[in-house]
Amino acid sequence: MMQKKRFVRTVCVDTPSLTDNTADDQRLEKSLMDELGGEEIRVPLHVLKHLPSNLRLWAFQARAVLFKDRYSWILVDLLDPLSATPVLGVAIDIGTTRIVISLMDLESGQEIGEKGFDNPQAVIGPDVLARIHYSHKHNGLAELNHLVIEAVSQHMAALCKAHGYRKQDIYLVTAAGNTAMTHLFLGIEAFEMIKEPYIPCVNIPDTQLARNLNLDINENGVVFLFPNIGSYFGGDLIAGILYSDLDRKKDPCILVDVGTNAEIVVGNQDWLIACAGAAGPALEGGVSKMGMTAKPGVIDRVWIDPESGDLAIHTLDGEKPIGICGSGMIDLAASLFLSKRIDIRGKFSKPACKNRLLEQDGIMSFILVDETHSATGEPICLSQVDLNSLTSSKAAMYTILEVIVKNTAGLDFGDLHTFYVAGTFGSFINPVSAISIGMLPDIPLETFEVLENSSLGGAKVLLNTPGAFERIMKIRQSITYIELNVNQEFMNMFSGAKFYPHTDASRFPSLKHQP
Amino acid sequence: MMQKKRFVRTVCVDTPSLTDNTADDQRLEKSLMDELGGEEIRVPLHVLKHLPSNLRLWAFQARAVLFKDRYSWILVDLLDPLSATPVLGVAIDIGTTRIVISLMDLESGQEIGEKGFDNPQAVIGPDVLARIHYSHKHNGLAELNHLVIEAVSQHMAALCKAHGYRKQDIYLVTAAGNTAMTHLFLGIEAFEMIKEPYIPCVNIPDTQLARNLNLDINENGVVFLFPNIGSYFGGDLIAGILYSDLDRKKDPCILVDVGTNAEIVVGNQDWLIACAGAAGPALEGGVSKMGMTAKPGVIDRVWIDPESGDLAIHTLDGEKPIGICGSGMIDLAASLFLSKRIDIRGKFSKPACKNRLLEQDGIMSFILVDETHSATGEPICLSQVDLNSLTSSKAAMYTILEVIVKNTAGLDFGDLHTFYVAGTFGSFINPVSAISIGMLPDIPLETFEVLENSSLGGAKVLLNTPGAFERIMKIRQSITYIELNVNQEFMNMFSGAKFYPHTDASRFPSLKHQP
Repeated sequence: MMQKKRFVRTVCVDTPSLTDNTADDQRLEKSLMDELGGEEIRVPLHVLKHLPSNLRLWAFQARAVLFKDRYSWILVDLLDPLSATPVLGVAIDIGTTRIVISLMDLESGQEIGEKGFDNPQAVIGPDVLARIHYSHKHNGLAELNHLVIEAVSQHMAALCKAHGYRKQDIYLVTAAGNTAMTHLFLGIEAFEMIKEPYIPCVNIPDTQLARNLNLDINENGVVFLFPNIGSYFGGDLIAGILYSDLDRKKDPCILVDVGTNAEIVVGNQDWLIACAGAAGPALEGGVSKMGMTAKPGVIDRVWIDPESGDLAIHTLDGEKPIGICGSGMIDLAASLFLSKRIDIRGKFSKPACKNRLLEQDGIMSFILVDETHSATGEPICLSQVDLNSLTSSKAAMYTILEVIVKNTAGLDFGDLHTFYVAGTFGSFINPVSAISIGMLPDIPLETFEVLENSSLGGAKVLLNTPGAFERIMKIRQSITYIELNVNQEFMNMFSGAKFYPHTDASRFPSLKHQP
Repeated sequence: MMQKKRFVRTVCVDTPSLTDNTADDQRLEKSLMDELGGEEIRVPLHVLKHLPSNLRLWAFQARAVLFKDRYSWILVDLLDPLSATPVLGVAIDIGTTRIVISLMDLESGQEIGEKGFDNPQAVIGPDVLARIHYSHKHNGLAELNHLVIEAVSQHMAALCKAHGYRKQDIYLVTAAGNTAMTHLFLGIEAFEMIKEPYIPCVNIPDTQLARNLNLDINENGVVFLFPNIGSYFGGDLIAGILYSDLDRKKDPCILVDVGTNAEIVVGNQDWLIACAGAAGPALEGGVSKMGMTAKPGVIDRVWIDPESGDLAIHTLDGEKPIGICGSGMIDLAASLFLSKRIDIRGKFSKPACKNRLLEQDGIMSFILVDETHSATGEPICLSQVDLNSLTSSKAAMYTILEVIVKNTAGLDFGDLHTFYVAGTFGSFINPVSAISIGMLPDIPLETFEVLENSSLGGAKVLLNTPGAFERIMKIRQSITYIELNVNQEFMNMFSGAKFYPHTDASRFPSLKHQP
């Protein structure tokens, strides 16, 4: 079986003679070009410095650590072919809220371990907007950059240590984040992104030396950040497309990534249409801000108990409930709607809710868990305000899906071969509930596929696949990015989608079979 | 008149709008590509970091400091288009004995000043061989590298200061040296160059960041070292060819560069044939080691006084004589031969020399200046040993010229349109004397052209000519490098050339008219 070609290769260099007395450097370049199919490659100064004695010590063989970017192959380092020095890579998902790093063996392609931690920039501001504003202050950009770089460096070192490696064993880092996170990671001004006409500084960042970014890995290591398409369409989604193989599908598929922001791509091997969360106030801070972050005691699932008809809950780690997260809220809304406790307009029905409704300052709240069963001593409620926000969010999601799939791509939802749900949203959401409230289209359940962290997944693919860079550039080029036009037509569609499941209930035939 | 295109250009960047919202980076790349005729260019991280605010502050104009190397254009830095910040470059001739630096204004192309100083590596060893041996010792390479880098940095700073500039104003350094000096300047192992099969580490060094070489100029400045062809054919000669325009001549010309080493190129726009001082013991340490370094009191010219028939001398700065340099020795040998004080075998003639001959330990010496007229209190003599060495050198030079021009290129000396003499040898030598002793061929005097420091000249050309890099690569590729084969035929030719002017005196018809 042919070994899959990765970024670590062993090359044989022609031995010199009086009739072949070209420079060692050219000798090495030739063997690398032979290995890489004739493509040009530069030999960096640190490799050159001791190339003559190394080549002779290693009997004219060498282990080359390579990378490939926009313009050419890069020789990251040259190692003893017989030494057992590990050659590791790290894939990073630079989430606005949470960062996840994965340590990989670049020779075997195996994952060694994974580690998630909160993005320390959150102390400056919870969202992209707050951080970009802060970055404009004196020293703000450097401070934000330092926070993320320090945290990533420390967690990489800890992850290495936990698995018996050294941080110097890391030669390659691939990272994907939204456009703002990418800029802040590189220490590049991001301020123009949030002002009309919303210009990012860079769309395709070149490969950087880790030491130029102060990232503490091997001193010759390099770092590549996934390119973005615009201010609102980041490298994280490009990574997601790479991970989902959307760009290689015969039949049209859709990828929905809702993390801090919401991004959607529909397409196949021939075309890709994307839109991102710049859909105006409807979606911004909508889906993404629903509920609390997952942690022990958080209600992540809600359902109607078939016997009692009452609502049942599940908490993370089975602890006493402390609150409710996004997926729990979608489940809750679905359960409330299916049990007719909320009506098609998304308003609480007093007769159906009975004594579970509480009125405070003129606002109704549904008591999911009373104070005696809650870990906080306070009841866990869903207020009409929360519900309205959820209604707007689900309507926005459905409308955007409709605009991109129907109005833009000219397809029906039924034409979608696979519906990939990625991001924190995708990891926990129950499609049945999302369909019940009219957030996701009513297509067969087997169409839905959860990708979990597709951004990290794409970064991992790149670490192990020299051909991935070309795919990334091809993805960038084949994407048609549409700015959602929040015009009268959109608002009409949005208004219809604010009903449960929709003003046009015929779009959700499966709901008829629900109790 | 069209302004000559240099490495500093002012570019206009398209202003962004809602309909043209690509990244600032791509905007800049586009304007640079337009300026550079469509060639790719990378924008470095330090330029990216504050690109958005700079572009807006500068009304979307910028002064770009560029360079071009083997693979692509390089954006060195981006400056305020309205600021008066000078943009300087430094050309360096890294001689084994002496280093010369020239400070240039990259916008006007004018030279600001020049400065020469001894290569501080001389404290380690006087010649290439001694230094390469030393470089193999523990820390030897780093020490040699540090010596030259420190000295160049200091002298660049001093040269800037002397002319009212700051070292940070230097963005570009081009340097040419022999292959060993090039390696030591870059801190690259050179040891394999002096062992069979004589392999240099690198032939075409990539452009380096000055800070990676610890060269103290602008923090974003870059350094380019002229490529060499092999261990014995360095970038200094490539620079010389560039400076002489040999690669653009219609008729064949020859370039002879004798510094510490001797290198010869013959050719025109269609072909170039080169050989270098690896001609074995005959030339090595021959011409190059003759006499002392030029300084006040050194005899640089000797001639026969037409009235007295005695020898007349000229010293540098007119001071009392302290010794004799290479050009003075060639003049002296010519004068001694023409006045029959030495015979055609290169031996002192006792009858002709009269009381000017001194015998010590069985070795005859010709007293050029007696102790009463010498600054040292010792007579200044030319011993038979010195003369034999000179004889070998001149024979080697003539033989090599004959081999390359006649045997290799298939030309007669008379076919040469121009005979460029470069290097320390060329700067001072009197062609009449060199012809008289049979060192240079007997061709019309107007054929000879002195280029002085052609290595520095080539480095200066590159600083001001973006197209020069392509010429450099073309020169490298069109050169046929011949290893001088010191076989029986060569030795026969060499033996004939050891006579004064030659065993075949018909080759030097002009000597018949001499007294």
